[in-house]
Amino acid sequence: MGITRRKAMTIAGVGVAGIAGAAAGATAVLAADSEPTVPVSAASGAVPFHGDHQAGIITPAQDRLHFVAFDVVTKDRDRLVSMLQDWTAAAARMTQGQDAGTIGAVNGIPEAPPDDTGEALDLPPAGLTLTVGFGPTLFRDASGVDRFGIADKRPAALADLPKFPADALQPEISGGDLCVQACANDPQVAVHAIRNLARIGMGVVSVRWSQLGFGRTSSTSRDQVTPRNLFGFKDGTANLKAEDTALLDEHLWVRAGDGASWMDGGSYLVARKIRMTIETWDRTSLGEQEEIVGRAKGTGAPLGQQDEFDELDFTLKGPDGEPAIGEVAHVKLAHHSQNGGARILRRGYNFVDGSDGLGRLNAGLFFISFQRDAHKQFVPIQLQLARHDVMNEYIRHVSSALFACPPGVEDGGDYWGRALFG
Amino acid sequence: MGITRRKAMTIAGVGVAGIAGAAAGATAVLAADSEPTVPVSAASGAVPFHGDHQAGIITPAQDRLHFVAFDVVTKDRDRLVSMLQDWTAAAARMTQGQDAGTIGAVNGIPEAPPDDTGEALDLPPAGLTLTVGFGPTLFRDASGVDRFGIADKRPAALADLPKFPADALQPEISGGDLCVQACANDPQVAVHAIRNLARIGMGVVSVRWSQLGFGRTSSTSRDQVTPRNLFGFKDGTANLKAEDTALLDEHLWVRAGDGASWMDGGSYLVARKIRMTIETWDRTSLGEQEEIVGRAKGTGAPLGQQDEFDELDFTLKGPDGEPAIGEVAHVKLAHHSQNGGARILRRGYNFVDGSDGLGRLNAGLFFISFQRDAHKQFVPIQLQLARHDVMNEYIRHVSSALFACPPGVEDGGDYWGRALFG
Ligand code: HEM
Ligand code: HEM
Repeated sequence: MGITRRKAMTIAGVGVAGIAGAAAGATAVLAADSEPTVPVSAASGAVPFHGDHQAGIITPAQDRLHFVAFDVVTKDRDRLVSMLQDWTAAAARMTQGQDAGTIGAVNGIPEAPPDDTGEALDLPPAGLTLTVGFGPTLFRDASGVDRFGIADKRPAALADLPKFPADALQPEISGGDLCVQACANDPQVAVHAIRNLARIGMGVVSVRWSQLGFGRTSSTSRDQVTPRNLFGFKDGTANLKAEDTALLDEHLWVRAGDGASWMDGGSYLVARKIRMTIETWDRTSLGEQEEIVGRAKGTGAPLGQQDEFDELDFTLKGPDGEPAIGEVAHVKLAHHSQNGGARILRRGYNFVDGSDGLGRLNAGLFFISFQRDAHKQFVPIQLQLARHDVMNEYIRHVSSALFACPPGVEDGGDYWGRALFG
Repeated sequence: MGITRRKAMTIAGVGVAGIAGAAAGATAVLAADSEPTVPVSAASGAVPFHGDHQAGIITPAQDRLHFVAFDVVTKDRDRLVSMLQDWTAAAARMTQGQDAGTIGAVNGIPEAPPDDTGEALDLPPAGLTLTVGFGPTLFRDASGVDRFGIADKRPAALADLPKFPADALQPEISGGDLCVQACANDPQVAVHAIRNLARIGMGVVSVRWSQLGFGRTSSTSRDQVTPRNLFGFKDGTANLKAEDTALLDEHLWVRAGDGASWMDGGSYLVARKIRMTIETWDRTSLGEQEEIVGRAKGTGAPLGQQDEFDELDFTLKGPDGEPAIGEVAHVKLAHHSQNGGARILRRGYNFVDGSDGLGRLNAGLFFISFQRDAHKQFVPIQLQLARHDVMNEYIRHVSSALFACPPGVEDGGDYWGRALFG
């Protein structure tokens, strides 16, 4: 369509002084799934919106996150479907660096609000991806009501997650009927996208909770530098990566025959807000920190080995004759060899939400993982961790959510949820 | 000293696998006050720490903010002074891309925690500045006690701010004995710096409140592009800029004779967290939005004029014979011509703190201004705005703080607060 975000200001325009300056969107396009590197200098390009899978899953993890969970506030199935169509159209535009489009505003009427909220007018696409997911309560709400006539389409894999030992979940920041994960290399672009989807959804959805993540804690491509989490450790080293296509088919993408067919090519998203008591961690010795994780803090190498990307070797012994990587080291407990082969794709972000009223920063990891079936992958790993991980002394899971992210949308007529509602 | 952040991992090191890779800090140095542009590609360089004024005031506004207010929890003046010395040393290092240094950890003892928390190990300086300020309660606490024997050094300009009409301040996120403003082009670098200062200050200070800002809402140099706030408008156009040296001498820097001499060369910082009800704003027509601000949303030009940087002309009339910029337009109310010549340097940031439990994003502007005397500059402007600004229908001030930011520190022996405590 070639309209840039700037165009928005001329559409409902009264009182608009002339729009000067060049079109906003940078034109460089990074292929979402095939060209993994997003160097900082090229981080302003656009990730293709259409495709077999939704972008924002194996897309090389962008630097910033705005995640939102919505409650659906209408019982009108048609309004919900029409909002999903509007969202899809707006997402297709915004991810390409354009404004949100003419959706949700009445054009030509001088009193109408602008079509776009405007705060990203001069900004490039910044690698924006928007990934939608459907929560268990969309199929049957807390009172068991099937508001939209889709209860029989709820996949078994979308059963509620079990309660884990030591869970300290806050219901008001857990769950949700719908989610949108906005990732971008500019937070203003991610916030702008979520805000405009909320605006377009007015009367149909209401923001249940939202989370900003300021720094990625994972890499999802072999060409990315591994970032660090707030414990100061490299995070994402042994992650599933975009290049591992066979592993992705095995562990990430839902396949025909897995269950509800509308999810074929989709993936399940688990979100866990994990508070980290960094002040206590900071008083722990380096040696103990490294034993807890099972890797060296500086290099990220497995204990007893040299290089960050050396395969974990649980047979190696340290100078004291004990295993270099202990039995309850985080990387051992979480390793697929200990969990019936289960692997996940981690795509979390660091957060700081001010302070906690007790003299400490309210900081942690907004954990996100994608997998073919959360109950067969996330759940066994998290059960191991919840039971045995010494790291638990320093962390607390305060929110939890599970969403079914449908496959990608095709160009032309397709929309988020078509196979579910259509 | 030439030690990079990476060095930290080898100091208290037990169990450390070899430290590979090149030194972290980029070597490019941007002059804080003379070379105003920080293009995105060069945004990784270091801003000099030492100088006549603290960096982070006229330094071209970096993209991200972590602001923290501390309560002092000791009554021991010597411990406070020694922490300020440690902070100064750590700040001098961290702003140059090095680790926090050997302060606050016992080296050579294997059980000691690392000297640095580590999450910024591989990151360049990212334009980090750390700016310290002293709050009114440091001089006399809420019970009127002069804990540190400095009550007679409290400048008149550090009197509490008055209550403004419609203020809805939350005491738990207002005030504070000390503040540190960390600005950087990478949020991980800003968060890392604040966290390490809090760690070094353990037992002396406790985090009272903290705020992340994800996007700058101001430019402080003529070479910067004007960013947009969450109302979608360009913000910072008519700001005091680094290049306006005569105006800065007049309106920004405290001068000999102004009051307490330890503040000569310093500046007063006002912080106001302003919640913006963006959902309501987004339902307001473009014409009304522009009338409220007094500028065009697209270009940022004054109403009735062409270019963003045209001088405001309050005599111009619109087609209807009424003034193009209305009597109660924000830019008119805030203009120095309406406030006895008062000008301020704005340096605020956009924030989104999740949602508000009522279906809306908890979003707004973390307003920061610097001035020679807040009572003569911020106060009259804010009184005008609080009384007449139509924008008040869409905003709510929820926190307030005032800090005296002392002058810059010299290289060698000097420290934050030396003239106050020395
Ligand atoms: C605040 C909480 C957490 C922190 C700080 C943390 C940190 C780390 C670190 C530093 C690594 C090693 C580097 C890497 O391979 O990525 C790692 C690996 C891993 N973590 Fe976590 N993690 C946390 C929570 C979780 C949770 C909740 C899960 C899933 C239930 C999980 C699953 C994994 C997995 C699967 C690996 C890779 C293990 C391997 O195969 O080597 N982590 N984590
Ligand atoms: C959420 C609250 C606020 C918003 C959205 C806002 C927005 C704006 C915008 C869009 C401009 C025009 C562009 C520019 O010159 O920078 C502006 C100008 C200005 N604002 Fe605000 N502002 C807010 C609060 C404040 C407060 C609290 C003060 C000080 C008490 C203030 C003082 C000023 C000043 C001095 C100007 C420049 C006026 C001139 O000389 O042209 N603003 N503001």
